[in-house]
Amino acid sequence: MTIALDAMGSDRYPEPEIQGALWAAEKWGLKIILVGDQSRLEPQLRALNTRGLSVRIEHAPDVLEMGDKPVEAARLKPRNSMAVGLELVKKGDAEAFVSAGNTGGVMFNALRILGRIPGVARPALTAMFPVRGGHAIVLDIGANADCRPEFLLQFAIMGSIYAEKVLHKHNPRVGLLSNGEEPGKGNQLVKETYPLLEKSGLNFIGNVEGKEVFNGDADVVVTDGFTGNIMLKSSEAVAKLITDVLRESLMASWRTKLGALLAKPAFAQIRQMLDPSEIGAAPLLGIDGLVFVGHGRSDARAIMNALHVAHEAIQANLLSNIRDAIREKLSAVENTISDNP
Amino acid sequence: MTIALDAMGSDRYPEPEIQGALWAAEKWGLKIILVGDQSRLEPQLRALNTRGLSVRIEHAPDVLEMGDKPVEAARLKPRNSMAVGLELVKKGDAEAFVSAGNTGGVMFNALRILGRIPGVARPALTAMFPVRGGHAIVLDIGANADCRPEFLLQFAIMGSIYAEKVLHKHNPRVGLLSNGEEPGKGNQLVKETYPLLEKSGLNFIGNVEGKEVFNGDADVVVTDGFTGNIMLKSSEAVAKLITDVLRESLMASWRTKLGALLAKPAFAQIRQMLDPSEIGAAPLLGIDGLVFVGHGRSDARAIMNALHVAHEAIQANLLSNIRDAIREKLSAVENTISDNP
Repeated sequence: MTIALDAMGSDRYPEPEIQGALWAAEKWGLKIILVGDQSRLEPQLRALNTRGLSVRIEHAPDVLEMGDKPVEAARLKPRNSMAVGLELVKKGDAEAFVSAGNTGGVMFNALRILGRIPGVARPALTAMFPVRGGHAIVLDIGANADCRPEFLLQFAIMGSIYAEKVLHKHNPRVGLLSNGEEPGKGNQLVKETYPLLEKSGLNFIGNVEGKEVFNGDADVVVTDGFTGNIMLKSSEAVAKLITDVLRESLMASWRTKLGALLAKPAFAQIRQMLDPSEIGAAPLLGIDGLVFVGHGRSDARAIMNALHVAHEAIQANLLSNIRDAIREKLSAVENTISDNP
Repeated sequence: MTIALDAMGSDRYPEPEIQGALWAAEKWGLKIILVGDQSRLEPQLRALNTRGLSVRIEHAPDVLEMGDKPVEAARLKPRNSMAVGLELVKKGDAEAFVSAGNTGGVMFNALRILGRIPGVARPALTAMFPVRGGHAIVLDIGANADCRPEFLLQFAIMGSIYAEKVLHKHNPRVGLLSNGEEPGKGNQLVKETYPLLEKSGLNFIGNVEGKEVFNGDADVVVTDGFTGNIMLKSSEAVAKLITDVLRESLMASWRTKLGALLAKPAFAQIRQMLDPSEIGAAPLLGIDGLVFVGHGRSDARAIMNALHVAHEAIQANLLSNIRDAIREKLSAVENTISDNP
């Protein structure tokens, strides 16, 4: 299995990418193509022990930086590492593409180069939310600020397949994010999406609120990209506020400092729960190819985990499973609608 | 100053209400009217020392419970404590109404009995969010799931006056909740609201994300009721998840238990930051009368704090300040729009 890895993606590229690629190649026998500036990658790769590992470089002279505007940058930097990596997938030289770079840039280039899965109106950005007992996949978290009900139905289908095939959840529970659990609660979009999900044949558990999401009651949480983005960033910010204030309060006296020292294993558990590198990467769903985006702050372990997730998706035939599900479920909903006018 | 207090509002009514009323009456010389079932309130009140305090009972035979549907319950229980209390405000017998009951019930009855401030299209539910260094007022957090840009402009005006007059913030910073800080980011509603806020004469600081909200960068955060509700409930749920997991991890070994004991003052600081009883209550803004809603889990201290907030609002002439601001700012925005077609 061959994975193209954006070697110029993370905040501290390319070190985390190179090290993460070597670990993943060793651990799972993966073939990794490091996509990036050859003159920069080659000396670093040569300095490491790559014997027996299948890690090679594909030259991409341009780098899409975090601050770059995707559309403009794609024009000014046509041979950026994202574009080159995604073309490897397009040509069939790689089965998946992984980047810890600018999410907007990956989405823009993926749409341009790989296009959409037939039947998918809008691809979605996803995030793996830490919840009680594990993770939930939330989508969309930012690609589509304004959505129509059928977009959310498609997000639900894709998220459900991902949860089943890659996260190994049996019969994944799909929740619709709303401002109240009762059916009938919600804004116009939620009210119109609800009946579509009911007819979808998915394991739709109804509306969910923050309480249910973070309690781990749903495996897949469906929402528009505006609301999903607000939920993602608010929860990250609350977690940061609490952990920051706690850290400061713990440093306030010798007594609390000693307490913090003794309680270290408990704090480590919280840190681990909130650490995005545990997950590695989240998929772009709806793109006609396997594309994964990791956190900009990814370290080598996060990159390794990202490659692992991509590996699982390849093994699970994620793409053809999503293609089939979109075809079948969408026609099922359409039939139900035409049967019950 | 006279405040009508719903004596049947909190989850453990009427004990927290009675005790909170006595404390507030003693502390600030407030006149409190306890509104509720006389046969239940009278013996409890008589058992306490109320000498020199102005606390009396207004009989209301019906109770609106947390699970009640507001519309239905208002019909079946016309003499509920909320309706009776709000009528005291309507008649001028009380200057404000405070309840820790069903928020939907308070909003429904307040709209029915007191109506809207002239010029306000939709009253808003508000919440005081704990943020770094204090609190921010967020509105709407649930009354209006689907909003138009002019609603959000009105929320901004009312929130700003509240922050200035009651929370004593000088020139309050107003942020528009969005999925990106840059102007132009947002869903359709945000994009259309942005120019209205720019022309409002308010201290509009632009779009804000979770990071800015919880960092305390805005005093007033404006959003539609759907998104605000999602942000509120998600952040509460994340805070609960973190504190629950931390508590469980701390109980896992003798070492961490001892650490927790020593670090207690630091945990107390977190608990205090997240404790809604610190704030007491948040206003319904846009109702033509002063109405405050506290948390269902309010204890006597929370009720006392809620009465304190209502007291501050009365002293600050909140209502007439909002009426004036709505009149002036709305016409200012309309003039700017007609000047620059």
